[in-house]
Amino acid sequence: MSLVVQKYGGTSVGSLDRIRVVAERVADTYRQGHQVVVVVSAMAGETDRLLNMGRELSPRPVEREMDVLVASGEQVSAALLAIQLNEIGVPTRSLLGHQARIVTDAVHQKARIRTIDGPALRSVLETGQVLVVAGFQGTDAYGNITTLGRGGSDTSAVAIAAAVKADVCEICTDVDGVYTTDPSICPNARKIPRISYEEMLELSSLGAKVLQIRSVELAMKHRMPLHVRSSFSNAEGTIVTDEEHLLEKVVVAGVAADKKTVKLTLRALPDHPGVVASVFEPLAEANISVDMIIQNVSKQGHTDLTFTVSREDADRAEAIVENLATSVDAQGVTRDDDVAKVSIVGVGMRNHAGIAARMFRLLADADINIEAISTSEIKTSCLIETEHADRAVVVLHDGFELGKPRDA
Amino acid sequence: MSLVVQKYGGTSVGSLDRIRVVAERVADTYRQGHQVVVVVSAMAGETDRLLNMGRELSPRPVEREMDVLVASGEQVSAALLAIQLNEIGVPTRSLLGHQARIVTDAVHQKARIRTIDGPALRSVLETGQVLVVAGFQGTDAYGNITTLGRGGSDTSAVAIAAAVKADVCEICTDVDGVYTTDPSICPNARKIPRISYEEMLELSSLGAKVLQIRSVELAMKHRMPLHVRSSFSNAEGTIVTDEEHLLEKVVVAGVAADKKTVKLTLRALPDHPGVVASVFEPLAEANISVDMIIQNVSKQGHTDLTFTVSREDADRAEAIVENLATSVDAQGVTRDDDVAKVSIVGVGMRNHAGIAARMFRLLADADINIEAISTSEIKTSCLIETEHADRAVVVLHDGFELGKPRDA
Repeated sequence: MSLVVQKYGGTSVGSLDRIRVVAERVADTYRQGHQVVVVVSAMAGETDRLLNMGRELSPRPVEREMDVLVASGEQVSAALLAIQLNEIGVPTRSLLGHQARIVTDAVHQKARIRTIDGPALRSVLETGQVLVVAGFQGTDAYGNITTLGRGGSDTSAVAIAAAVKADVCEICTDVDGVYTTDPSICPNARKIPRISYEEMLELSSLGAKVLQIRSVELAMKHRMPLHVRSSFSNAEGTIVTDEEHLLEKVVVAGVAADKKTVKLTLRALPDHPGVVASVFEPLAEANISVDMIIQNVSKQGHTDLTFTVSREDADRAEAIVENLATSVDAQGVTRDDDVAKVSIVGVGMRNHAGIAARMFRLLADADINIEAISTSEIKTSCLIETEHADRAVVVLHDGFELGKPRDA
Repeated sequence: MSLVVQKYGGTSVGSLDRIRVVAERVADTYRQGHQVVVVVSAMAGETDRLLNMGRELSPRPVEREMDVLVASGEQVSAALLAIQLNEIGVPTRSLLGHQARIVTDAVHQKARIRTIDGPALRSVLETGQVLVVAGFQGTDAYGNITTLGRGGSDTSAVAIAAAVKADVCEICTDVDGVYTTDPSICPNARKIPRISYEEMLELSSLGAKVLQIRSVELAMKHRMPLHVRSSFSNAEGTIVTDEEHLLEKVVVAGVAADKKTVKLTLRALPDHPGVVASVFEPLAEANISVDMIIQNVSKQGHTDLTFTVSREDADRAEAIVENLATSVDAQGVTRDDDVAKVSIVGVGMRNHAGIAARMFRLLADADINIEAISTSEIKTSCLIETEHADRAVVVLHDGFELGKPRDA
């Protein structure tokens, strides 16, 4: 007998028929003798419907109340799934955030979980009941309802799995695992049987479609194995786990492209100590994540400072550096929306020299110009023109032979 | 400065536009310097939508989870109204049942309120905030979500008003008060400026459309004045209050017709001690309210026992007495669905003789046959054929001159 946390996303509980399918899956697991905690998202479309109502009333709706509003979405899906599980003979009770004692900080709309009463949840499981917990929600120390931000149900699931010391946290979704790259771009993309937390984090632009980054970080911290799999089949999906549990340390596990990136350049910035810090400090204060940073060799005491941000932060970032340009005596700011970042990721990269060089060669042979490069221990990223992004993915996927079947 | 509880029903918060109108009304009261607690129902149609989803999954959905499901409806309307109030500059926070510490018994779907933390609510009001409390919901002693049953938001409002020691509990609804009779039947029906709790209770079939009976009982118990008024105008509605606060003790305050009644007769029941008790005990155990009871004079040791029940209880009641008929040696059971009860109500009836006789005369003059009669201190009811019900209402309303304007 093991203790399993299963998370079902909005598409998986998007209609009463789908809720019936999910209930059968949960019942199967339960009848195999496992203890089961189910974490559910709101029915697909429901969160947007609620958010839109709030925004229609107010251009800047008060955040505390938006949390009360949207938290109702998970409440409905949790209750419906509990009704259906009881209907098919599985004793089940739903728990909302406050009932599961999911205590968060007080940051409405993007709260972070502080504590969960794992022993209390376990004692309910010991009575033979399945628990259906409303994802995405908690309460702050004063009992105000909070939500974890978009995709927060993944984080709820991992945090609950850690709190109850589950054996595995299954992320059941509408795809059947993590792929070597986006199958819609590269038809011979292959499902990855096992991948490390680190690789999963670096493959964010792939992973974001199936897993919220914070949930992977949290799983890594608690060494909680994640199993990304389809809600609609029993096929094995992708296990996200510790590196030592990988059967094979592949050199390149996957290829990802991020087309939602914007390049900003501060031109002819005076090159003296502290000037770079004075650029990035205000961006950090505005909570803007800067991704790649490229500083060219300075000429006559001036340099061009280039960096990338996500498209949603681009307007704010541009305004901040425009503002800065005068005070730091730069010539001006250039913005380029026509860029994409392609990355190769793999823990084996650490021990294999020449992987980055091979990536550059593959792109060069395909006549794709590289505008900037950044590297980490297990990832190499190149900034290229957006129009070449899909072709670059195919070139790299084929060049590193990711489409070839391997043993799991 | 006074402390006002305002309750808005589902129609009053049935759309974002209506929520804007309600917010303006609340803001008016707040800006006049009053402390305001608003109690809201779910947006019109929402409770039914949620109930239907649950019932589509399960013919007998588990009640605990149905409460979780439907409680989300009031959560949404409370959050939306709080968003709009903040938007127009009124500092407001929403409170769900568990946050307002509305503790009920553990009877799901028809829970009764045990306690509300009035002092805690008052201390929030003292900070200058408006409170919007989700009606219809509470939690039991273990934190399970409960609901109060249909129309429970009225009861929430009165219970909260009593707990915070409000000066008045306004029931804001889509009608502008309580009328002497149903205006759709009797066009000269008149709005009643003041009415006693007792009269309101007896006029249940009128009142049920604007006020849940339990909420009137609760108001009477706490001597909390109710003000039934329109959500969409500032006109005075009907004050429901203690008898001593009535300006005038009218003989007949209103006329009501109940067409949802069914007459059951146990024929030729042996007339010996205890036999009547043996009929009504099983009905009471089945939680069936018997309304009128008529026992004819016995002939040769046998009597016909007639009683009425509501249409929704009729099938169960019939089955119970059919079952009993053999064991008590009765001849059989007759059921008549074609009956209606017309009633006249007024506290002045206590001191005026001949009111009942005048009612019988008015009906007789209109060729309406009376099948049974029952009386209380302040009410006289006659059972008649359903087809005559509307005409009987008009005859009585005109006969007692209820359409004539009076001073408030």
